[in-house]
Amino acid sequence: MNNIKVIAFDADDTLWVNETYFREAENEFAKILSDFETENKIHQELFKKEIDNLRIYGYGVKGFMLSMVECALELSNHKISQQKITQILDIGKDMLEKPIELLDGVEEVLQQLHGNYKLIVATKGDLLDQERKLEKSGILKYFHHTEVMSEKKKLDYQKLTKRLDINPSEFLMIGNSLKSDILPLIEIGASAIHIPFHTTWAHEEVSEEQKSDKYKTVAKISDVLTYL
Amino acid sequence: MNNIKVIAFDADDTLWVNETYFREAENEFAKILSDFETENKIHQELFKKEIDNLRIYGYGVKGFMLSMVECALELSNHKISQQKITQILDIGKDMLEKPIELLDGVEEVLQQLHGNYKLIVATKGDLLDQERKLEKSGILKYFHHTEVMSEKKKLDYQKLTKRLDINPSEFLMIGNSLKSDILPLIEIGASAIHIPFHTTWAHEEVSEEQKSDKYKTVAKISDVLTYL
Repeated sequence: MNNIKVIAFDADDTLWVNETYFREAENEFAKILSDFETENKIHQELFKKEIDNLRIYGYGVKGFMLSMVECALELSNHKISQQKITQILDIGKDMLEKPIELLDGVEEVLQQLHGNYKLIVATKGDLLDQERKLEKSGILKYFHHTEVMSEKKKLDYQKLTKRLDINPSEFLMIGNSLKSDILPLIEIGASAIHIPFHTTWAHEEVSEEQKSDKYKTVAKISDVLTYL
Repeated sequence: MNNIKVIAFDADDTLWVNETYFREAENEFAKILSDFETENKIHQELFKKEIDNLRIYGYGVKGFMLSMVECALELSNHKISQQKITQILDIGKDMLEKPIELLDGVEEVLQQLHGNYKLIVATKGDLLDQERKLEKSGILKYFHHTEVMSEKKKLDYQKLTKRLDINPSEFLMIGNSLKSDILPLIEIGASAIHIPFHTTWAHEEVSEEQKSDKYKTVAKISDVLTYL
């Protein structure tokens, strides 16, 4: 990692807590629907609905809200009360207003790297939501800019390095999702450091055989400094 | 406009039809709610709801869908049927699946300018939705990349030119919204060409005195070639 020029950080669950709030939201949603189905079935159906809608809604809280409403209507055979639909919308609105909980060591790492590298945020979430989180978090000042990506696949990262006018070998991605933040980078010849988060959305999980020794895995973000 | 290096095109209602679909959707929405209120009141309340939610949802179809559901629940005192909520969600899903109707002359203009300038798309909509439209439209090949902006104000354009590593004087924006695509550009010393579209969302309208002679107004996109 000698010639790295740009370091991109995934945002959700790399810089701050996020997936935990989705898990909490799913549990609240299951409670609202508990008259109609078992908790397990509700979780399964919501996940299916999210995946079905990913193609048209993409990632982020707004799509999640729409999937919850649709799932509630279908699972209850359109019997869920109108008041409960309002409660479901409120779950999502609360998510959008959550305070930002930076993960341990994030600010120190950014302080150290700032000035030596161009630091960017590379995220799949809603642009507005991610920008608001960055502003609230107080770490906006360390970043050159935010790249919002509709997907984080090989081709998307190729486009990103082209847009940044750098070689993939000059690009380092740091993130918590093997599938989105690490494996596609290895494929294009960029560097990647994986920092697992305790909770991973099922859609982001990868099988054991997809793992490789071409990236580093660290336990906490401050450990990335040993490689830079 | 001698030293222009980057030309940014607004997407919705500059490259393709968009606002027309929102007007149609609002009319369908009003029909669904016609048991509860007058058409006029429904339009007014939906607009209010959209503006209230803009801070948390931003622009785009998903936020519009969430605002329609919320507005329907409130306007009907939670009496709207669950089936009608599904119909409202379907209005939005249909919007996301609409074919792309390029405006007259768009492709010819892009063909002419391509190679002589770096062409980008600068839009406030959902990233995924806008990328899908670009791909469907067949004009993706003319653009270097898409910039999705959470707002199109002075500061946002300043950040954009910084990110593009150019001077504002080297930047030309072409779009249909005086408020979003033209006036902020004049403020930062960039160039702008206004192409009015027959329908403008009330939120994008500006008063007569905000208009200025520092930008060009043309009737159709092919007219921009006379300035370049």
